[in-house]
Amino acid sequence: MPSNIHSHESREEYPPTLRYDVTPSDRDVIKRIVEGTGFFRTDEISVAVELIDERLKKGDASGYYFILAEMVGIVTGYACYGPIACTLGSYDLHWIAVDPAYQRRSLGRILLREVERHVLQNGGRHIYIETSGRPQYIPTRSFYQQCGYQIAAVLPDFYDRNDDKVVWRKIL
Amino acid sequence: MPSNIHSHESREEYPPTLRYDVTPSDRDVIKRIVEGTGFFRTDEISVAVELIDERLKKGDASGYYFILAEMVGIVTGYACYGPIACTLGSYDLHWIAVDPAYQRRSLGRILLREVERHVLQNGGRHIYIETSGRPQYIPTRSFYQQCGYQIAAVLPDFYDRNDDKVVWRKIL
Repeated sequence: MPSNIHSHESREEYPPTLRYDVTPSDRDVIKRIVEGTGFFRTDEISVAVELIDERLKKGDASGYYFILAEMVGIVTGYACYGPIACTLGSYDLHWIAVDPAYQRRSLGRILLREVERHVLQNGGRHIYIETSGRPQYIPTRSFYQQCGYQIAAVLPDFYDRNDDKVVWRKIL
Repeated sequence: MPSNIHSHESREEYPPTLRYDVTPSDRDVIKRIVEGTGFFRTDEISVAVELIDERLKKGDASGYYFILAEMVGIVTGYACYGPIACTLGSYDLHWIAVDPAYQRRSLGRILLREVERHVLQNGGRHIYIETSGRPQYIPTRSFYQQCGYQIAAVLPDFYDRNDDKVVWRKIL
């Protein structure tokens, strides 16, 4: 799943508050962040919204867990992850996005680290991240690499012709 | 996703009737077939039933399409497939299973060919099948190979420790 995180995050000032419960009002906030990145296609944005809708409807049973980064009450980024069905210990990072106005503050890195901590606490062994092989994603790939992820598989033309799927994995 | 299809299917007698709509009564039939194979874990069986529940609730919008093989009105096997979200032209074969009492009649092959025909008709380019790397699946892998599928990726320890995910792909 997509992310708009770039590798050159640096400012560590104003550490965010992390929140683990989502409320109905987060739906529009998340949609705004995802749209605001200018990074995602309409169908991708719909999927991002579907995940929070499922979470709001079914809670933990949805299999979608959220971590929201807030600064003085304003949501500045979020991650969505969950266990992969029919596996023991494999998790997907479904989504990670940071409001463009708040990038370069290590928010992506803080969110991803927190996801890893939670997955490990719940007995997870692996985290998988699926990204596109398109040039647009070069900074994203660089971010995952710096966070200790490695390429586990490449599926040529998976998303579309000339749009490969790259599967990243971190063994916890 | 799992399948209990073996490679040494041979008898072509009694060609099955294929059906593309599912009814609430198919729910128990599919559960019985999947359980009857003795091939799947309880959590895998739950997922098989979830897919038909989603289909019954949401129709095409579920993204799950079914093909059922019938002989004189008795469902003897089925396949479930669908487009992969956020891709253009990539499909997953979610499930394929044949009632053990009706194996060795090429039902698996007939079902898989029909899935491929439908995917192609709908502009699909690729079909993906995810299977376990455990020895139990050697005959299944042989079946996919004979049907023209190739290994696109192997993810070590994905399902569990010592239980790899093997991703098969056919380019249509």
